[in-house]
Amino acid sequence: MAFNRLLRVPEAELLTLLYGEQHRCCTVPQPELQLVLSSEREIDLIELEQLCDAVGWSRRPLRRVRKALEHSLLRVGLWRHDPRVPKLVGFARCTGDGVVEATVWDVAVHPHYQGAGLGKALMRYVLERLQAMEVERVSLFADPGVVEFYAAQGWDLEPLDRRCAFWYAP
Amino acid sequence: MAFNRLLRVPEAELLTLLYGEQHRCCTVPQPELQLVLSSEREIDLIELEQLCDAVGWSRRPLRRVRKALEHSLLRVGLWRHDPRVPKLVGFARCTGDGVVEATVWDVAVHPHYQGAGLGKALMRYVLERLQAMEVERVSLFADPGVVEFYAAQGWDLEPLDRRCAFWYAP
Repeated sequence: MAFNRLLRVPEAELLTLLYGEQHRCCTVPQPELQLVLSSEREIDLIELEQLCDAVGWSRRPLRRVRKALEHSLLRVGLWRHDPRVPKLVGFARCTGDGVVEATVWDVAVHPHYQGAGLGKALMRYVLERLQAMEVERVSLFADPGVVEFYAAQGWDLEPLDRRCAFWYAP
Repeated sequence: MAFNRLLRVPEAELLTLLYGEQHRCCTVPQPELQLVLSSEREIDLIELEQLCDAVGWSRRPLRRVRKALEHSLLRVGLWRHDPRVPKLVGFARCTGDGVVEATVWDVAVHPHYQGAGLGKALMRYVLERLQAMEVERVSLFADPGVVEFYAAQGWDLEPLDRRCAFWYAP
């Protein structure tokens, strides 16, 4: 059994303490990197803002982000594991009723960690969490640059010729 | 002031009692019809099932429908007013975080009441209720037959070439 040198607790127990019962470790080519998915560990809003900056998203007032996260059906973080200071390097969230519909928003992986299959692992984990709730259907709006990413993972693009429409608050 | 003959309360007061403070009366060509929109009056699940049958939607177990409604951000009904037994003739609901995102689902108007602008009034009411929450963006997935309906009301179809994708529980 692997023990953490600093904290003297078994490594698996430490991961559960930090990331919750449902956490998932990701396999990456670099053996020194430990990356962990979790829907239970709380998302730090400042870290989330830094991640959004890194992927080039516009900022929102933190109190609105906090409320949006609180009212989301699912929040998933991807952390670069560190026993003292895990670093948030990926994120996704869903809104929905948790029964019939769920919609995925704000999927992000920090540019330094892209290209290692982490986006795919993140989406697979999101779907697993939603399946555990027995959600019937999951939807998302794919930007042109990521259409192939979702198609390759078995998402059904515009089934029945459905089109997406948006209305923006004036 | 118009009084209700049966219940001896002013008509406006009766409507507020039945449909809540935020109700909205719809103007229709038939003067004998009074149609009222409300996000406050409770939706009867049996009536909703009958409405879904009338528009040709497949049935779902009522306990799942109940849970989906409970976890929706907004539920709007359109009633044919009757002081004793209002009849549900239209429906829409939204999921979302109530801050950044809301998504519209299950927009239905009973076939007997279509063609009088009620779908448009229903959607306008949905957007007003979401604006009152200060939601930034509202989204929906439009079937081919209703794309023009939404486009005519100012919805932005596939902005930035976004495409919709669905994943269905196995």
